[in-house]
Amino acid sequence: MPPYAAREAAVGNPDGPGYAGLATFCGRPWLESEAELLARRPDVAVVGAPFDVATTHRPGARFGPRALRASAYDPGTYHLDLGIEIFDWLDVVDAGDAHCPHGLTEASHANIRAKVHEVARAGVFPLVLGGDHSITWPAATAVAEAVGWGEVGLLHFDAHADTADIIDGNLASHGTPMRRLIESGAIRGRNFVQVGLRGYWPPPDVFAWMRENGLRWHLMHEVWDRGSRAVIADAIAEAVDGCKALYLSVDIDVLDPGFAPGTGTPEPGGMNPADLLRAVRQIALDTPLVAADIVEVSPPFDHADTTVNSAHRIAMEVFAALAHRRRTAAGGTPDLPGTAP
Amino acid sequence: MPPYAAREAAVGNPDGPGYAGLATFCGRPWLESEAELLARRPDVAVVGAPFDVATTHRPGARFGPRALRASAYDPGTYHLDLGIEIFDWLDVVDAGDAHCPHGLTEASHANIRAKVHEVARAGVFPLVLGGDHSITWPAATAVAEAVGWGEVGLLHFDAHADTADIIDGNLASHGTPMRRLIESGAIRGRNFVQVGLRGYWPPPDVFAWMRENGLRWHLMHEVWDRGSRAVIADAIAEAVDGCKALYLSVDIDVLDPGFAPGTGTPEPGGMNPADLLRAVRQIALDTPLVAADIVEVSPPFDHADTTVNSAHRIAMEVFAALAHRRRTAAGGTPDLPGTAP
Amino acid sequence: MPPYAAREAAVGNPDGPGYAGLATFCGRPWLESEAELLARRPDVAVVGAPFDVATTHRPGARFGPRALRASAYDPGTYHLDLGIEIFDWLDVVDAGDAHCPHGLTEASHANIRAKVHEVARAGVFPLVLGGDHSITWPAATAVAEAVGWGEVGLLHFDAHADTADIIDGNLASHGTPMRRLIESGAIRGRNFVQVGLRGYWPPPDVFAWMRENGLRWHLMHEVWDRGSRAVIADAIAEAVDGCKALYLSVDIDVLDPGFAPGTGTPEPGGMNPADLLRAVRQIALDTPLVAADIVEVSPPFDHADTTVNSAHRIAMEVFAALAHRRRTAAGGTPDLPGTAP
Amino acid sequence: MPPYAAREAAVGNPDGPGYAGLATFCGRPWLESEAELLARRPDVAVVGAPFDVATTHRPGARFGPRALRASAYDPGTYHLDLGIEIFDWLDVVDAGDAHCPHGLTEASHANIRAKVHEVARAGVFPLVLGGDHSITWPAATAVAEAVGWGEVGLLHFDAHADTADIIDGNLASHGTPMRRLIESGAIRGRNFVQVGLRGYWPPPDVFAWMRENGLRWHLMHEVWDRGSRAVIADAIAEAVDGCKALYLSVDIDVLDPGFAPGTGTPEPGGMNPADLLRAVRQIALDTPLVAADIVEVSPPFDHADTTVNSAHRIAMEVFAALAHRRRTAAGGTPDLPGTAP
Amino acid sequence: MPPYAAREAAVGNPDGPGYAGLATFCGRPWLESEAELLARRPDVAVVGAPFDVATTHRPGARFGPRALRASAYDPGTYHLDLGIEIFDWLDVVDAGDAHCPHGLTEASHANIRAKVHEVARAGVFPLVLGGDHSITWPAATAVAEAVGWGEVGLLHFDAHADTADIIDGNLASHGTPMRRLIESGAIRGRNFVQVGLRGYWPPPDVFAWMRENGLRWHLMHEVWDRGSRAVIADAIAEAVDGCKALYLSVDIDVLDPGFAPGTGTPEPGGMNPADLLRAVRQIALDTPLVAADIVEVSPPFDHADTTVNSAHRIAMEVFAALAHRRRTAAGGTPDLPGTAP
Amino acid sequence: MPPYAAREAAVGNPDGPGYAGLATFCGRPWLESEAELLARRPDVAVVGAPFDVATTHRPGARFGPRALRASAYDPGTYHLDLGIEIFDWLDVVDAGDAHCPHGLTEASHANIRAKVHEVARAGVFPLVLGGDHSITWPAATAVAEAVGWGEVGLLHFDAHADTADIIDGNLASHGTPMRRLIESGAIRGRNFVQVGLRGYWPPPDVFAWMRENGLRWHLMHEVWDRGSRAVIADAIAEAVDGCKALYLSVDIDVLDPGFAPGTGTPEPGGMNPADLLRAVRQIALDTPLVAADIVEVSPPFDHADTTVNSAHRIAMEVFAALAHRRRTAAGGTPDLPGTAP
Repeated sequence: MPPYAAREAAVGNPDGPGYAGLATFCGRPWLESEAELLARRPDVAVVGAPFDVATTHRPGARFGPRALRASAYDPGTYHLDLGIEIFDWLDVVDAGDAHCPHGLTEASHANIRAKVHEVARAGVFPLVLGGDHSITWPAATAVAEAVGWGEVGLLHFDAHADTADIIDGNLASHGTPMRRLIESGAIRGRNFVQVGLRGYWPPPDVFAWMRENGLRWHLMHEVWDRGSRAVIADAIAEAVDGCKALYLSVDIDVLDPGFAPGTGTPEPGGMNPADLLRAVRQIALDTPLVAADIVEVSPPFDHADTTVNSAHRIAMEVFAALAHRRRTAAGGTPDLPGTAP
Repeated sequence: MPPYAAREAAVGNPDGPGYAGLATFCGRPWLESEAELLARRPDVAVVGAPFDVATTHRPGARFGPRALRASAYDPGTYHLDLGIEIFDWLDVVDAGDAHCPHGLTEASHANIRAKVHEVARAGVFPLVLGGDHSITWPAATAVAEAVGWGEVGLLHFDAHADTADIIDGNLASHGTPMRRLIESGAIRGRNFVQVGLRGYWPPPDVFAWMRENGLRWHLMHEVWDRGSRAVIADAIAEAVDGCKALYLSVDIDVLDPGFAPGTGTPEPGGMNPADLLRAVRQIALDTPLVAADIVEVSPPFDHADTTVNSAHRIAMEVFAALAHRRRTAAGGTPDLPGTAP
Repeated sequence: MPPYAAREAAVGNPDGPGYAGLATFCGRPWLESEAELLARRPDVAVVGAPFDVATTHRPGARFGPRALRASAYDPGTYHLDLGIEIFDWLDVVDAGDAHCPHGLTEASHANIRAKVHEVARAGVFPLVLGGDHSITWPAATAVAEAVGWGEVGLLHFDAHADTADIIDGNLASHGTPMRRLIESGAIRGRNFVQVGLRGYWPPPDVFAWMRENGLRWHLMHEVWDRGSRAVIADAIAEAVDGCKALYLSVDIDVLDPGFAPGTGTPEPGGMNPADLLRAVRQIALDTPLVAADIVEVSPPFDHADTTVNSAHRIAMEVFAALAHRRRTAAGGTPDLPGTAP
Repeated sequence: MPPYAAREAAVGNPDGPGYAGLATFCGRPWLESEAELLARRPDVAVVGAPFDVATTHRPGARFGPRALRASAYDPGTYHLDLGIEIFDWLDVVDAGDAHCPHGLTEASHANIRAKVHEVARAGVFPLVLGGDHSITWPAATAVAEAVGWGEVGLLHFDAHADTADIIDGNLASHGTPMRRLIESGAIRGRNFVQVGLRGYWPPPDVFAWMRENGLRWHLMHEVWDRGSRAVIADAIAEAVDGCKALYLSVDIDVLDPGFAPGTGTPEPGGMNPADLLRAVRQIALDTPLVAADIVEVSPPFDHADTTVNSAHRIAMEVFAALAHRRRTAAGGTPDLPGTAP
Repeated sequence: MPPYAAREAAVGNPDGPGYAGLATFCGRPWLESEAELLARRPDVAVVGAPFDVATTHRPGARFGPRALRASAYDPGTYHLDLGIEIFDWLDVVDAGDAHCPHGLTEASHANIRAKVHEVARAGVFPLVLGGDHSITWPAATAVAEAVGWGEVGLLHFDAHADTADIIDGNLASHGTPMRRLIESGAIRGRNFVQVGLRGYWPPPDVFAWMRENGLRWHLMHEVWDRGSRAVIADAIAEAVDGCKALYLSVDIDVLDPGFAPGTGTPEPGGMNPADLLRAVRQIALDTPLVAADIVEVSPPFDHADTTVNSAHRIAMEVFAALAHRRRTAAGGTPDLPGTAP
Repeated sequence: MPPYAAREAAVGNPDGPGYAGLATFCGRPWLESEAELLARRPDVAVVGAPFDVATTHRPGARFGPRALRASAYDPGTYHLDLGIEIFDWLDVVDAGDAHCPHGLTEASHANIRAKVHEVARAGVFPLVLGGDHSITWPAATAVAEAVGWGEVGLLHFDAHADTADIIDGNLASHGTPMRRLIESGAIRGRNFVQVGLRGYWPPPDVFAWMRENGLRWHLMHEVWDRGSRAVIADAIAEAVDGCKALYLSVDIDVLDPGFAPGTGTPEPGGMNPADLLRAVRQIALDTPLVAADIVEVSPPFDHADTTVNSAHRIAMEVFAALAHRRRTAAGGTPDLPGTAP
């Protein structure tokens, strides 16, 4: 059943159904230029990073931003659990895409970095839509530049650690961004926490490097063993301990491929959406979150937008939690049926 | 591995595999006319409602009845958990489809209401196959007419409340049927219980109306938090408290889209089939259930009949539980490997 | 993110990505002849059984071995949970396929039996890739011949018992292999344990026969009720009690169809991959496992290789656990991040 | 746009859309027993042969009859080119399926032969829906038994000659049925004509045998070179020259895979539907056609029912042409917009 | 290979690839309001009509406009055959969608009529993207209102005549729009010409009505028989004979389903894209074309955007031909490799 | 129907069906090293180039070589039209893949060039499987190095000219390889001939450059207008006029997307497979062909291997024609049913 009545009421969209009209993220205003952004200074700006050149297996994540805008089932705007009309409390805009010329990694990464920096230095929360995971390198770098070099932690959901030094000669692979971020000092290791790692990669020397650099990880095995709630509580504690700001990076392959077939390097035995959505909500509620990305959504391998919709809801949880914090700060309380978060 | 040997034994179907022969629901006899129905007076009659005009997003549920008859993998007829040869204890027929002329909501709804009423007034349990969720309006109305206006409760599995007043000018939307049923008095609010609500719709005024009218709901968050078993126990208690009869309405989108991609308005973070099937079983075992529907199965968005098969098994659980009750009433006990329900 | 750097390091494959080069299972050496096998005497030999003539519903499992070699996403070779570089400790080869002439059950089964026997009598662990479940009849027979007639137990994951006597005139159906194995005495009933049974088949007389012959089963309901860990512990205890050797047979339809659409007779309400992979690991760690098969993967009904990858990881768990036992025997311990199994 | 108004008018089906109601072929009456058949003695009886055990590559044709009844888009009943309301002039029934037990070739073939013989000996035109091409062996044998052993010609559309002696040990393969029919004398070689052969099989010794036995063939190259119309005229002349009766066998893979992806052994470079449909029409208009089959439709590999619909229309062309002949014999003439055939 | 360099050059789009940035039709400016339209007075305005309630079989055409904007492969802007940079000569804008509330035919049709009228009365060429074919009723009515009631001819490509009076009680079906247009006098019958009719609908009384009202048709059989070029020449001559203005309506199901699987009522044996695109070009070059629609594109049944892309190119041919006419009028000539049309 | 009997006879493969055994191209021997190649000096070596980084729209061509080896339906080995058992006359081997590290254009291109040069300088005909079209740059360069710089013509089937100078900053795009080849002098313009160009790219300045450099082209419009046979005859004449050797490059998107959905930049209105296969055959029969590539096959967008199979048969036509020339040179003649080419 359908949410657009609510959506119209809230956003004033006269187009009716979500599949009509202009395909911006959640039907939010399209503000492509920095000038427009500075004039409005919204709370959050969605930035697309349609780049998948750094993919080791199945490509297609270049179509992620377009699908998240044009194909996701637009779920309304009233978050039931938190009892909040999101966009009453949070000004979200769609800032368009970083220009990612086909086949060109360096130029694309530079443009992503510039675009995200534009947003972050305006004091706006950038929510970046990948693209493959390599885009976290320029995106988180830009955030660190704007917020404080080495003062940003990173909470990272993924089946893979993405901390290799170099893969098959490629330093800008989607398997290496986290290494680059720690190496450069943009992100500090002690507030770098990973959740959901499983499978058969990377090899032990990479984990040794991670330990040396203070990174912490929670294998999917631990989630299976102790439950998502307990692990997330620990991960949050580790990530924020002494940390000024946090960046959240969600590789959609942290979900089991049954829930997220549309991704490039699927690994069976992952999380389920109910747990992941609540984990993201908790993080956005309880940490000094300043930026986020959602990556590795590959629409050509998706079916019936299952993966696209899960990724879309991750953004919605971030929005809802940020809105909730603003409301709480303003002394507001949840409407029906909202229960305390 | 294959069930049809059992099916043949039980139903005497000489066609062998389920993909051969006449495609009725579970291979049950086809009794389209009221006369035939009255002559046989079966326990349950399956009624198709191939209507999807009231869909706000992805259509296709018009193909639900056909797929549930012709494409579902016919799972045999011996319910392992209950240890019962279903059709030895329960006479189920396929009563065909209500005529739903394309594009015509009023005429289609009228025909659905008439067809379900035909079944219910004959004292037969109607199991209605949607179609979109708007069909619950005429179907449950017909049941209330036959069983007792205002004396029927409704247990409702769904990601969405479907209690809006009007959506984009449409009073007969698949987002409004529950409002119509309460408004008309066909179903009473105090025995109206919802399970699985999540996401971003409807807005708070709708929940306020629901509370005013005594409806109760269990968000998916509660299922996640407390577990399905506890929530279902509460929901059953609420639904049957002082209630003469119960109608069960299962929107397949209560399942997570990973398990049910073939639906119109998918919402990530839903139930899993193992929980849902047991919930349905429990309800059919423990309440004065008189009718049920299974809606929003949209085959064009399904893959490998995953959604179709889950919907099919929901019907099977209803059948098995009803059969079990008859057997118990007759002093019978489960065969191997049946364990107590 | 990408595993092939690790794979290259470990296996010395210069081809780079897993989608390049020769499509053997995990990129392991191809040893088709018995002579080559005897010369090398590896620890494990993968054997394909591309046969699906015995399927009652959706065929396609004949493409299982090809898909598992050519389409699975090759996950690297370092098992994170066990902290082991698998092929450092375990010599695995790909022994090619048994010749399964189209449409000919007897000839195909004979060839499968001969091929598996070739492996087993060389003291090599056969890991057989189906093919439909009927191939367990010749495969487990061959293992019993080599290891000890009547001295092998069988741990069987499946939605269906596959213990019918005859189905629609077919004694070599994919619904009858377990009956044949018990009848012949190849496998003994008291160490025959089933996990995951659910749905509507077989009828009670088959369960009566199973009880008479000492077979034990754990319905999916029990897994749902007690949890996978507890049930697997019991199943292992039952299977190895007084048993010299064990054969593991995994029908991929033990998983819920949401995780494994690519199979022939899907039954909603099954296991999830995280539980199944750990169950397989536990079995390979804690029992005298001598052989295994993975069956009923039907690529034509798969999507984005979801089913294929889950099946592939089942093999990987077997490999990793066997490698771990060898390492433990040699006094080795897990590398990072390996936690005790 | 929609045909069912016409369908209703003609057949009196009150169910409305083709996706509602009972899924018989074209909504025609279901007459499964010989008794019913003899009582009615229709002009044509549709017989399903859901068998695909003899397939060398992609299976799935077992689902052909079900899909042709339940999934094909029912195109109405008024043939525009011939200007004829088909079922006003031709009594067509659906005689159900021959019982094809899974995995059993001999039993399945025997049942197909018996079922088709039942139809043919009643003087009814059997239209057989495969199933793989091996079913032409029993089906055409049954027709020859009823109509005159050795007095029936065969016009055969296919990418492959299907005249091998034995393939991989299998005499009942879908690559050998034509050899069996000539060998037994059921069909005579001099009126055996093939159209559409292309690709890489069979080898020259098979063609030598064909020439020795008087078979004639028209390669797809000839269709490409001379055009379909000229080749069909020749093929008809050859097939009927001195021939009492004709059997038409259409392997859907005679179409280019672009038009017929849903088949087992696709060969690029085939016919287009516009040509094939007219060829079938011409044959049914101009030859003593007594039976037909349409084979190798494999729904698991189809998309959007493209292949299923083309196969369905082949049956419709046969019906329309037979109806036209009856009308002409009765002195009737085409309605609008019918042009002379 | 890729067109976006050209696109950028022509339209000044800095986003790079067509899958990035704002998803308007061909990346053209988005002008939703009448005020904007009147201020700019472009040559052509694209209007979406996301409505599919009137569909008799497979729905989904509501997603047509979104897919044509967001999923079509944007082919560049330089028409090779005509040697013209289209948007140098023709100002095309995207005017957004008519509001089509779900399930409401009358309101949706009224909105479509109003929106198209807004465009047409501004002297702008409306190019309407369906939606199902019922939208031609309001769209062509609006054009007739603006251009001259009864002075507009209609050239109609379709597998179906869509001239029924009423279907299953529905006067606003996608099978009846042409009847409504002739009945009201909006379009005159003598300049109403149909091309591509085939299959089994409508019945002869409908053709009789068509003849009485002066409509002309060219069956697909005639296209097959005489070739597309000759038939199109005749159709153009008939359509423009004494006609002031022409409306072109292209139902994508005029194409064979092999080329256009993504449609609701597919009929095998249709046209190929090469012929259809040239026919549309010829019509736009040689007639007083004032409006056009492209309907019945149903993305849920499409694969790899095959249907979407063909529909997109139909619009491009209209644009290119209109641009060519303007250039010719201005004394311009084709660039390389343009050959005379 | 099935080809593997023939395949076995010819190649001695004991594995039976094409989906079994080792997945090399056509089951030919796997010779990865130059040493092996030099030892055997086969007639043709198949080389994979699994690279798609240079793609402007839909990626996925990296999976082309794997799919052509592992998923194509292996069509037998006896070419009917030419009446030749191909591998009796032509020694073809599979030389494996050039190493294409993910995301690295320069390294990948260098490796492709080296691998193809290895083959060509050994006097072996390289048949290169893409990969996107950028791989023609290194591949044809390597051939020119080995055969004679500037002495090789190029016959190019494609919807797009691929002669841009630079696209979005990328000189190594899949839209620029032909420019690079002419610029470097590797290929000479006057024997560079293109067939099938259509659509909306490139702009006129690129065509001007092409004319200046003597390149010739045949638009798809000309193929539509004059027929494939006439155009191919001209193209051959132009390509070989004064040319020592020829390289054939087939972009699968020269086919209409209805026949080749599995490609990255589909353009409606293309060739059909029957024409293309005969064109390739003619070229291989009538020109001094020394190398060929088949590119832009993108399996993620394919359905039922339709595109993969068409691409596979293009290779087979090259093989068959080369074999025919050897036989003719040896005085041999076609077997049945071979007609003169």
